[in-house]
Amino acid sequence: MNSPKNHPIPNIPASKFPKVVIVGAGFAGLKLARKLIKKNFQVILLDKNNYHQFQPLFYQVATAGLEASAISFPLRKIFHNTNNVTFRMAEVASVDSVSKKLFTSEGYVDYDYLVLAMGADTNYFGNKNIEYFATPMKTVSEALYIRNKIISNYERAINIERPENRKHLMNVVIVGGGPTGVELAGAIAELRNNVLPKDYPQLNFHNMKVVLIEAGPVLLGPMSKESQSHALKYLEGLGVEVMLSTLVKDYNGQIVTLEGDVFLETQTLLWAAGIKPNLIEGFEQAHYAPNGRLLVNEFSEVKGNNGIFAIGDISLMTNEKYPKGHPQVAQVALQQAVTLSHNLIHREKSQEQHAFQYKDLGSMATVGRKLAVVDLPFIKFQGLFAWLTWLFVHLMAILGVKNRLFVFINWSWNYLSFDPSLRLLIKPKYVRESERKELIEEK
Amino acid sequence: MNSPKNHPIPNIPASKFPKVVIVGAGFAGLKLARKLIKKNFQVILLDKNNYHQFQPLFYQVATAGLEASAISFPLRKIFHNTNNVTFRMAEVASVDSVSKKLFTSEGYVDYDYLVLAMGADTNYFGNKNIEYFATPMKTVSEALYIRNKIISNYERAINIERPENRKHLMNVVIVGGGPTGVELAGAIAELRNNVLPKDYPQLNFHNMKVVLIEAGPVLLGPMSKESQSHALKYLEGLGVEVMLSTLVKDYNGQIVTLEGDVFLETQTLLWAAGIKPNLIEGFEQAHYAPNGRLLVNEFSEVKGNNGIFAIGDISLMTNEKYPKGHPQVAQVALQQAVTLSHNLIHREKSQEQHAFQYKDLGSMATVGRKLAVVDLPFIKFQGLFAWLTWLFVHLMAILGVKNRLFVFINWSWNYLSFDPSLRLLIKPKYVRESERKELIEEK
Repeated sequence: MNSPKNHPIPNIPASKFPKVVIVGAGFAGLKLARKLIKKNFQVILLDKNNYHQFQPLFYQVATAGLEASAISFPLRKIFHNTNNVTFRMAEVASVDSVSKKLFTSEGYVDYDYLVLAMGADTNYFGNKNIEYFATPMKTVSEALYIRNKIISNYERAINIERPENRKHLMNVVIVGGGPTGVELAGAIAELRNNVLPKDYPQLNFHNMKVVLIEAGPVLLGPMSKESQSHALKYLEGLGVEVMLSTLVKDYNGQIVTLEGDVFLETQTLLWAAGIKPNLIEGFEQAHYAPNGRLLVNEFSEVKGNNGIFAIGDISLMTNEKYPKGHPQVAQVALQQAVTLSHNLIHREKSQEQHAFQYKDLGSMATVGRKLAVVDLPFIKFQGLFAWLTWLFVHLMAILGVKNRLFVFINWSWNYLSFDPSLRLLIKPKYVRESERKELIEEK
Repeated sequence: MNSPKNHPIPNIPASKFPKVVIVGAGFAGLKLARKLIKKNFQVILLDKNNYHQFQPLFYQVATAGLEASAISFPLRKIFHNTNNVTFRMAEVASVDSVSKKLFTSEGYVDYDYLVLAMGADTNYFGNKNIEYFATPMKTVSEALYIRNKIISNYERAINIERPENRKHLMNVVIVGGGPTGVELAGAIAELRNNVLPKDYPQLNFHNMKVVLIEAGPVLLGPMSKESQSHALKYLEGLGVEVMLSTLVKDYNGQIVTLEGDVFLETQTLLWAAGIKPNLIEGFEQAHYAPNGRLLVNEFSEVKGNNGIFAIGDISLMTNEKYPKGHPQVAQVALQQAVTLSHNLIHREKSQEQHAFQYKDLGSMATVGRKLAVVDLPFIKFQGLFAWLTWLFVHLMAILGVKNRLFVFINWSWNYLSFDPSLRLLIKPKYVRESERKELIEEK
């Protein structure tokens, strides 16, 4: 990022209301900003992108089922005609909790309340080789990168004479048996089974392996036993090789080394094995949990920092029911945002604040066409009806009527045609001559 | 590109039929390949991209009205279930007309008939500064680049305190008064008039200039006087400053210098002022016209090269009706492809070949909402009905039912909402660590 600038961010409108600065427009930050529309606060929402990303569908962007724009929503559009919310694209560097200033790539901004909602990034658990060679999927850019990578690997494979020399281009290995890993593995297996053989009739897809590796003994760890076993059965039915209780030791861009010196040949190692919070400077060691999350009290306030809050994946709140903290999922982020919006209003009126209570609405994951698993508080089910439930819940959660419509049409089309048609290798090939040097320096 | 390899392209299926190698899957090359489906030829179609690009709508991608995927079509999908056409992604380097070999980045391929249909690229007429700093729009990647550039300029402008220092980020200058320039200017003016002020309420859009510069005395040179004057009137109505008979002398990335030392401040100089053919090595000087196009006879055969053809923008064919050659438009490319497909079949049967006869179906250009100009052979009209005609003709020309459906829904949505919603700055930010070095070396 650019180094933080020591002047106020220009063109922030004046306001008589207390200033709430929200960092990050993911599920938590965006929900809070929307809850504060037309309330007696001046809200400044910052994000490094100018759009909200709908993370649960990244895997469909990666597997050519959805266009990136269908699950991305321009933030400025959300706040048309709202006078009290200002969006600004900026990267955040540090906070000074004494002078109540947040420093960013575009200048600093004063706050009365600061809400940190920067979410999490990929965690490689310190393995530098894996970080260097593997491919993460925590942004829509990364999802598009995966799509391009898989397609270009096939375009390269077809130019190789001997089948044994194509393996590293055709195999895909996914690490992490959570919903992201399961959904990616299922979608890639379906591409292999139904679509790629039509695109590349000269290649033999019996030679293409899709491998899902999980360190723990089960897939979808936090879900029910029924869901876990059904997900495993569905994946194996699609021809995914699932390796449980298996640790990845190393990767050199070509060969994955597992414990026990098992080797897998692939150029495509997709890493969905863990996350770590995105942090900024300005807090002491005591404010962090050992896993790097910011310790917050029952009102999401960072311990020892009056007026600074953290919500969503970045924060760690413990209580009797969740002594190790809440799960890092969208529902927690959204509910924390809602509670915080009420508490900020109460606080301004000197009313009592309410402790956050997580209401677990259940969880679900999809494996493939007509294959999903759903755990609701009072019922668990799998298969076609679970798949329809998954589609409906995710469709309703997408922001904006137009995006919802486009996702719905895409899904219907893909379902009927068996052919997600976005196999386009539109690479960032074009850079204006005069900017090539800049680009190189940035890297 | 990679240096050409001295081995045959691997995995080309064996065939008893004569081999037609087509270079380029634009309007000309793709039409020819499709016409030869299930005919007694083995067809090898090569393109540097794995998709066909619908050029007439690039300007809508650039102005956030359409997604790139809606006007791009995966080439492999078109040839599913066709046994005699093989697509291969490759860059073409040179031809050896004696041994009848075409050399590419992936190896060489033997041909019985070679058809060159590589189209044209941007022509800067030798001005190195303009080539270095200006932005072209001849590929869908370049169109996306323009979209990202305009959006990021606004995100930068809002962080600048003094309005006079924002001008270079807000102004847009377009050079070239053909359909591309006119359509871009109109669409950008509409963004300024209707959309951007809602996204950036802190910026004053009366200060944003949209300038269209044309070297000749009229816009839309080859069209009728009525169309020319209406297009000018429509653009001025949208607030575009049109400068006719004006030459751009220089550009330093910030200031455009016109003849007579007039200066325009802009970081966004869009160059749609001319094209030049994409060429390969292997021909003598005598095969080229002074403007760089390959000279062909009435059967599109490159003069003096038996069995090598050139169709579309890359070729120059003259006859009594077109003593200076045909216009470089999609209709000529498509019709030449159709004629050539018949002639190849006739030639194999030793039947008579037919000289190409261009049937001019008319031309049209759109300026904005309900504003277009249409010249048909027997009638000229402008305004709302012309706009509906333009929409219908372009919708029908788009390849694939799904793309057509998505373009239609997008257009309807944009028309009703006055708000093309694709203002997403999804930049090619992500590159896997291990590939950064490669990327830099490639540039």
